[in-house]
Amino acid sequence: MIQHLAILGLGLIGGSFARALRASGAVGTITGFDTDPQQTTTALRLGVIDRAADSASAAVAEAQVVVIAVPVLHTADALRACRDALLPDVVVTDVGSTKGSVLADIRRDFGELPPWFVPGHPIAGTEKSGVANAVVDLFRNRRVILTPHAHQDPAACATVTALWRSVGARVVEMAAARHDAIFAATSHFPHLLAFAFVDMLARRDDADDVFPNAGGGFRDFTRIASSSPAMWHDIVRANAGPVRDLLAQQIEELQGLLALMDAGDWPALQVVFERARAARERHLSQIE
Amino acid sequence: MIQHLAILGLGLIGGSFARALRASGAVGTITGFDTDPQQTTTALRLGVIDRAADSASAAVAEAQVVVIAVPVLHTADALRACRDALLPDVVVTDVGSTKGSVLADIRRDFGELPPWFVPGHPIAGTEKSGVANAVVDLFRNRRVILTPHAHQDPAACATVTALWRSVGARVVEMAAARHDAIFAATSHFPHLLAFAFVDMLARRDDADDVFPNAGGGFRDFTRIASSSPAMWHDIVRANAGPVRDLLAQQIEELQGLLALMDAGDWPALQVVFERARAARERHLSQIE
Repeated sequence: MIQHLAILGLGLIGGSFARALRASGAVGTITGFDTDPQQTTTALRLGVIDRAADSASAAVAEAQVVVIAVPVLHTADALRACRDALLPDVVVTDVGSTKGSVLADIRRDFGELPPWFVPGHPIAGTEKSGVANAVVDLFRNRRVILTPHAHQDPAACATVTALWRSVGARVVEMAAARHDAIFAATSHFPHLLAFAFVDMLARRDDADDVFPNAGGGFRDFTRIASSSPAMWHDIVRANAGPVRDLLAQQIEELQGLLALMDAGDWPALQVVFERARAARERHLSQIE
Repeated sequence: MIQHLAILGLGLIGGSFARALRASGAVGTITGFDTDPQQTTTALRLGVIDRAADSASAAVAEAQVVVIAVPVLHTADALRACRDALLPDVVVTDVGSTKGSVLADIRRDFGELPPWFVPGHPIAGTEKSGVANAVVDLFRNRRVILTPHAHQDPAACATVTALWRSVGARVVEMAAARHDAIFAATSHFPHLLAFAFVDMLARRDDADDVFPNAGGGFRDFTRIASSSPAMWHDIVRANAGPVRDLLAQQIEELQGLLALMDAGDWPALQVVFERARAARERHLSQIE
């Protein structure tokens, strides 16, 4: 059991992990800190954390494990802010949606990646944000990707793995670059595409006439466009290379479909639809 | 009460309408016909219809109301197939997702639009197809768009309106061209975009590695890509003008985002995300 755990960043993910860890009994005391005092106060009031700290350093002072759950471009900042207060045998992990940028930022600050830093990414969340939306079972039966690095202490990795397993998650390891390529495709770029589509409709003169006629398909297709713009700005920026490549590729794909439509080649268009449906159905059991 | 109603096309929509009408008591006997004998047999076995006909003409012979629920490019074909067997005071309606093409096809066959034909489109459905997936409450609290035409008999329109209301739907009238522009934006183009996105991923060498790492956002975003390719081929083809314009516009929008990324103009990208989220949230109460 971890006697004392600190969470820096009390949003949906940090708050839900705190709730889940308390429910699992895997952790004694949880201290929380958020740069927004309102979130820290709410977390304490809702019983998500045991103690509220008024700085990152104060939060980590007694912690065996520190979880950084801040927007991905600020992960290294949060680590830098508490660096001098960390216990000598601490384990630090994060929950950021991109891994290459986090590792590059930390390497820049520390010269080399610290053995006690374990890069992590839980594949869970909703379009909602903030600690008030934190739920105890957010990670149950979900994947958590860890991307151990060359200087990794295996014991630190084992500690983080055990914590995630205690809240019902499945832990998978892969290289950071692989992680970033995969999640650009399954998550980062789809968010960009959904935002771009809804923005296109929103800028129509008849937008007020269009949206009320949307059905269930539209609702689901655009759900991720209700996600936090600031958070997704960070993620797209942090994983700009792979997202940019997918964007360029999607433009090409759509230009191909436009050419098919202009040529009246409807059978070829149907082949695209069939290929897409077959791929989704083939993998459906894995994604639902 | 309608003594006798015929449904041509026993798929998800035709089957669900039959189930709902029987449950509402608004209709006496329902006769069904599908060009796929398997669907007709299943519909009879499941009690979705009272009688199975072996041709469109046989199905409509005693019907006061005929509902055509076939793929949209075949609506006029179905009407032509039973034309000579229709009762003199019949009311015919359809459920096609596009209206301009259906009206053009029928006008071509009849010289002018028959007063007894009421163009309709229920805004309901799932990614599933076939009569086996028909559910009794598919239309409850859903919109049904009717697009009355210049030669419309108001009494025919009133009959169709009453039927839809009896199954809990809200009936809205608008011009066919307006309907097609709106539903290109909220339904037809989003399906094309979802198919195109999933197809792009499916053609990757590492597709088997990508899909298993998808989360809930991906599942919802791509749900409509599990829809019937044949049906959506028909719809995109039938409403090709508005869908093509949206596709061209979406390509431009994405090219704009690519330029922002290449210029490193992250604040401008975030503005797009914010505008999209604000529009969706503003209209959320109307679409959920």
